[in-house]
Amino acid sequence: MRTSVATVCLSGSLVDKMHACADAGFDGIEVFEPDLVASDHSPEEVRALADRLGLTLDLFQPFRDFEGVTDDLLEANLRRAEAKFALMNRLGVDTVLVCSNVATATIDSDEVSAAQLRRLGDLADQYDVRIAFEALAWGRFVDDYRRAWRIVELADHPRVGVCLDSFHILSRGHDPAEIEKIPGDKIFFLQLADAPALSMDVLSWSRHHRLFPGEGSFDLAGFLAHVLRAGYTGPLSLEVFNDTFRQTDVTRTARHALRSLVWLEDAAGRLVEGRADLDRLPLASAPQGYDFVEVKAEDTADVEVMLGQLGFTFRGRHRTKPVRLWSAGDARVVLNEQQARDQRPHLAAVGLAVDDPATTAARARVLMAPPVHRRTYASEVPLEAFTAPDGTEVFLGEATGGEPVWVDEFEGGDEVGTSPVSRVDHVNLAQPWADFDEAVLFYTSVLGLDAGSGTEVAGPRGLVRSQVMRTPDGSVRIPLNVAPSGTSDYAQHVAFACDDVVAVARRAREAGMAFLPVPRNYYDDLAARYDLPDRDVAELRELDLLYERDEHGAFVHFYTRTAGQVFLEVVERRDGYDGYGATNAPIRLAAQQRA
Amino acid sequence: MRTSVATVCLSGSLVDKMHACADAGFDGIEVFEPDLVASDHSPEEVRALADRLGLTLDLFQPFRDFEGVTDDLLEANLRRAEAKFALMNRLGVDTVLVCSNVATATIDSDEVSAAQLRRLGDLADQYDVRIAFEALAWGRFVDDYRRAWRIVELADHPRVGVCLDSFHILSRGHDPAEIEKIPGDKIFFLQLADAPALSMDVLSWSRHHRLFPGEGSFDLAGFLAHVLRAGYTGPLSLEVFNDTFRQTDVTRTARHALRSLVWLEDAAGRLVEGRADLDRLPLASAPQGYDFVEVKAEDTADVEVMLGQLGFTFRGRHRTKPVRLWSAGDARVVLNEQQARDQRPHLAAVGLAVDDPATTAARARVLMAPPVHRRTYASEVPLEAFTAPDGTEVFLGEATGGEPVWVDEFEGGDEVGTSPVSRVDHVNLAQPWADFDEAVLFYTSVLGLDAGSGTEVAGPRGLVRSQVMRTPDGSVRIPLNVAPSGTSDYAQHVAFACDDVVAVARRAREAGMAFLPVPRNYYDDLAARYDLPDRDVAELRELDLLYERDEHGAFVHFYTRTAGQVFLEVVERRDGYDGYGATNAPIRLAAQQRA
Repeated sequence: MRTSVATVCLSGSLVDKMHACADAGFDGIEVFEPDLVASDHSPEEVRALADRLGLTLDLFQPFRDFEGVTDDLLEANLRRAEAKFALMNRLGVDTVLVCSNVATATIDSDEVSAAQLRRLGDLADQYDVRIAFEALAWGRFVDDYRRAWRIVELADHPRVGVCLDSFHILSRGHDPAEIEKIPGDKIFFLQLADAPALSMDVLSWSRHHRLFPGEGSFDLAGFLAHVLRAGYTGPLSLEVFNDTFRQTDVTRTARHALRSLVWLEDAAGRLVEGRADLDRLPLASAPQGYDFVEVKAEDTADVEVMLGQLGFTFRGRHRTKPVRLWSAGDARVVLNEQQARDQRPHLAAVGLAVDDPATTAARARVLMAPPVHRRTYASEVPLEAFTAPDGTEVFLGEATGGEPVWVDEFEGGDEVGTSPVSRVDHVNLAQPWADFDEAVLFYTSVLGLDAGSGTEVAGPRGLVRSQVMRTPDGSVRIPLNVAPSGTSDYAQHVAFACDDVVAVARRAREAGMAFLPVPRNYYDDLAARYDLPDRDVAELRELDLLYERDEHGAFVHFYTRTAGQVFLEVVERRDGYDGYGATNAPIRLAAQQRA
Repeated sequence: MRTSVATVCLSGSLVDKMHACADAGFDGIEVFEPDLVASDHSPEEVRALADRLGLTLDLFQPFRDFEGVTDDLLEANLRRAEAKFALMNRLGVDTVLVCSNVATATIDSDEVSAAQLRRLGDLADQYDVRIAFEALAWGRFVDDYRRAWRIVELADHPRVGVCLDSFHILSRGHDPAEIEKIPGDKIFFLQLADAPALSMDVLSWSRHHRLFPGEGSFDLAGFLAHVLRAGYTGPLSLEVFNDTFRQTDVTRTARHALRSLVWLEDAAGRLVEGRADLDRLPLASAPQGYDFVEVKAEDTADVEVMLGQLGFTFRGRHRTKPVRLWSAGDARVVLNEQQARDQRPHLAAVGLAVDDPATTAARARVLMAPPVHRRTYASEVPLEAFTAPDGTEVFLGEATGGEPVWVDEFEGGDEVGTSPVSRVDHVNLAQPWADFDEAVLFYTSVLGLDAGSGTEVAGPRGLVRSQVMRTPDGSVRIPLNVAPSGTSDYAQHVAFACDDVVAVARRAREAGMAFLPVPRNYYDDLAARYDLPDRDVAELRELDLLYERDEHGAFVHFYTRTAGQVFLEVVERRDGYDGYGATNAPIRLAAQQRA
């Protein structure tokens, strides 16, 4: 279907926005009137620019406070409308959004509103434009799309139809199934927005917190499926008022926005029959585990020492590059010193094991994930790779059940023995605050991970927001941490799973590893909080182990010191515990600040 | 009264926070348990540090989910409590906050809760500690301070009293007057927090958006007056959960916090009789107008040229410094090139005319406003001065009705003629986002300005939040603008009032001034929005004038181009118009981005 986006979603001038939308690949835009009024481009120039960029101008928005008014006011409103219709003719846009009256309506009557919209339709006829009437969630009398449709039905004018906005419908909890009763050709326009579940007044929620589809709590695929079943064939258009998107790089946000529609069209299309006009995405299965994790730095020795202390085996040097491989069970850590001048140790790449790398890569390309063009250490086995919004490179290896074939490219390693560490449990990535929503959409749409509920953790430098992206079976878990605005140097980490964290910790201690030290006060509190035997608490304390228990089971884990921008964690999940030790995160953050 | 603050209000480690509180001048702190648990200082070390710093440990907080439970759970809760009482003995803190049960209460009975608190009181007796029971706004059964007091009354135990928290009471709209019915010695503790008027769930409101007294919408002076009339003599303590304060500089936030209590004690004290123990502030009247505005730069020529074009008169050079004075009516602009190497033009200082500069300065000192120690251009007439949170220097001149005496220090100026510009209308200061709340408190508490309601303006780089600080009569108006997080280079400006903005604009145009250009689209929209004669619209367009009308009157204004970080505005207020042209701000921001 055709894609469109309201200029109000983006930062910059109207001209900046138009260029960014065209570059991203949108078919059209909704012209938000204040953007036009503030522009130094005349309507004719905007029209010409749109032509040159190959963008259609799909909607002029909005016209407000028209219906349900006294006769005097109606005449004034018709004069206002006529000025805007003339402007639309100059712009070459044929549909105007008319929002249900918030401010000036005094007559609560479907018949009166319908008659007034019919008058507007007659005027629209003279200018060859169409009226898309929309129920705002906070409209004075009309705040439900079903009532807006009833009024449009009563108006019975070829120039008058409805505009459906997912936010106004889903935020109120109105059943979207009744959309299917509206003839598709009377749905003049469709505006899509997601939103997080928030308990606040709907106006503020709408004006500041909307999100692109796939980033919030609304079931937008289900919503769109209803609209498609109604027979709607117009553009899928985004109207997302969001404080962050208003200020982030317009080119990047436009691509991010289009990705959400590409994902949504596919997701909704899978729910409806008989709509062969819908674009589909390659259907890739979710990853089955980690292929490898890569730490990159000019000098990775600090990390290498820690891996040895944790019982990892040195698997050799790459045949052709300054890259080394360590492994323990199915956990593989690549230490990359290639082209890393002046770089401190950091998580540069995550390799995921998927059924069919080519299909996942094809899906990523359609979803506009930027491809990675470095020559990988796996030069003999070329891996598909693309870049996540935070800059982490994501490689796709083939899930074979055994060791990946690229391991053979490493030579001169030690004998592989048994290891107490079995695999990568999770990879924690720090996100710049402005890129967080984009990252959530990236991991869901490109890789098929699910977003669980988010948490917030109090650290000494502010609240850290955390959102876990994962496969349902937990084989891949990627907690995304958003550092407080203004800070950017939060470390990332890799957590390794094991069956006996006490043994791993003891061995690491004997090998001289520097643990992240845990304060005694923590253990005093632990004893008061949980009914743990003194001996267990003493053992936890001795080994700087952290402990958390939920309704399922227990989580015992420890952290290494930070090397550069990265640290390591070893975790033991007991009896189906499925979390990440959130209650211990403030302890870790405070200890890291002291270190 | 004694002052205290919960460590949860501040950023950093517990030790950082204790040092900052002592440095700011607090008498004590509330120890927030998670801060202690995450600390590498033992309870005995924290106690010793507090002693050395001269801080009392006023409250241990919080203990949760105690009352209204089954017998089994009660025994477990008493064991938990005993561990915490023992910890309190080690810390040397004698009062514990017990929050009303949110999670585990199953018995909705005042009698049961009272009996259970009595058990807790008996245990507290053994450890020589006191229980301050508080109704959380979202408590399962107890969510009203009056019910908490009824339960405490029923418990009838010398170790059991109430804790009052202004947020929990005022957020629910509960009448604080009934506090006066509680005996003062049964109010074991008082926690103060302000908050903005927000329509959202009370838990999120409480956890993220509390403010220091004087910064929000609550009537905290009235609230505290009730508590004082009840006879409360304990500490005034702040408990302010705020995402921003959690991450801003701890030393600065601690001073900011203490300022709010100093202000509040005085403000509440003026409402009660017979409390001679309260500290009072010097009572200064609000400013009567602007003494001067100072633009500072290595080279101020661009601003000087604009002042000439606006009809200002050159009043001479300072006798001893590289400083020049220009005036028009009562508007005086000082151009300061002293010690300004590499500085671009910016608003460095604002001089205000007050009745009694010495008293206002004394008030500012008690409220910890940092004094300014530069040798002013008014060296012969020493002016009191201090620094606002954003770094702007605020000078205090004596309101005489005529020209300030320091004007005589400028020599070699031109003849003063009549001027179409009459005075400074407002000075718009850009605020770093993290300092905004501190700035609001500064201007209200130190200078006696009032905070009106805030607005938000959409600019091409994000939403700009604006809050006007002003005297009731409008003689001093200081709009504070908060730029979107991550941007910092928003310009500040001075607006001059006149009676005929068309004449000023015409004269400036003839003098060759570069106006901020306003797009034609703006005037097309203006014609559609207001019923203005074509001739008027043409004149506005010709002169790049902006227009806004409200229910009172009209506002006509124009902007100059920006020089460095500063631009100028000329405004005409017609028929009692009292705003700032907010609808035109997006036009200005877009035009400034193009420039």
